Amino acid sequence: MSPTVEFWFEFASTYSYPAALRVEDEARARGVEVAWRPFLLRPIFAEQGWQDSPFNLYPAKGVYMWRDLERICARLGLPWRRPSVFPRNGLHAARVACANEEASWLPDFVRCVYTANFAEDRDPADSAVLASILEGLGQTAAPILEASRGDEAKAKLRRRTDEAAAHGLFGAPSFRVAGELYWGNDRLEAALDHAAG
Amino acid sequence: MSPTVEFWFEFASTYSYPAALRVEDEARARGVEVAWRPFLLRPIFAEQGWQDSPFNLYPAKGVYMWRDLERICARLGLPWRRPSVFPRNGLHAARVACANEEASWLPDFVRCVYTANFAEDRDPADSAVLASILEGLGQTAAPILEASRGDEAKAKLRRRTDEAAAHGLFGAPSFRVAGELYWGNDRLEAALDHAAG
Repeated sequence: MSPTVEFWFEFASTYSYPAALRVEDEARARGVEVAWRPFLLRPIFAEQGWQDSPFNLYPAKGVYMWRDLERICARLGLPWRRPSVFPRNGLHAARVACANEEASWLPDFVRCVYTANFAEDRDPADSAVLASILEGLGQTAAPILEASRGDEAKAKLRRRTDEAAAHGLFGAPSFRVAGELYWGNDRLEAALDHAAG
Repeated sequence: MSPTVEFWFEFASTYSYPAALRVEDEARARGVEVAWRPFLLRPIFAEQGWQDSPFNLYPAKGVYMWRDLERICARLGLPWRRPSVFPRNGLHAARVACANEEASWLPDFVRCVYTANFAEDRDPADSAVLASILEGLGQTAAPILEASRGDEAKAKLRRRTDEAAAHGLFGAPSFRVAGELYWGNDRLEAALDHAAG
């Protein structure tokens, strides 16, 4: 059995974008499997007293983040365009991802949703955007979107979010390996190196 | 003239410890000079509504930081012992550093203060600790400590802190190169690579 890293991501999270685009290739290069773990930051931020992204609540942090992310994407050769709205609501996309964590198309779906938001300024809260992504991946969108609105999908995402909080997660992206927590796109390599042993 | 990186640090800041211990060697390896810039985070945090370290205000972040710092120090081979008090007041040490930014002993003083706090559990708010560090570096402590209590030293540190805020700094360690800001021990290499051109 291959070693595994849990990759915890929130679709609204800016630094999750480069991590989501990189994690599978970097994991494969080390013989590590990725367990995709969508969750919601909003309830976790609310526990900390934040009703908005800290990058909006603390403007100096926000100014820095946008410039830093632009530099990171340039260095990694990732497409980048600052979204005209931030944060965008990733709830629907997260329900789709959570209900389909094991689907073969899931990693591509995750990357497409991030790219839509952070490189194409398209809104993943729009069902038409999610449908076009799913169809682009050869899936029939309607039943997937329909199921993602059901009680089972909602409950599963709530469970994942509770699990994230129980594991001590406070931001995204986060990685878990053998009980160790790593936070941030900056820690992707350290987490994978740990998993690879 | 060598390219220069401004290294902005606050003595109470945990992630500034590995950065302060590494920055001069890493800079030298790239032919870069370090401009040491002590400042105070407290007034900057107060502007953000924080009366304590965010690692105390947000416990999950704090739990993570202590473990992360332990891992970082192990990887870098730096001595590490979790301080029994956090944060410790770095005001007096910062005044000493700020009043002596150009002194040949300043880099060693900075490293010794961080090591006292984060590897030896000694309190840099204690004048006796600062005196023993200065004497250990071959300096006569009394006049240096006396001057650091004067109006000029106080005003200079206030100016540096105002300057930090004006530059958009919101945490420590931070690095500035040609108007670009880099935040965190994680960005030390990126900042120095930028400076080295």
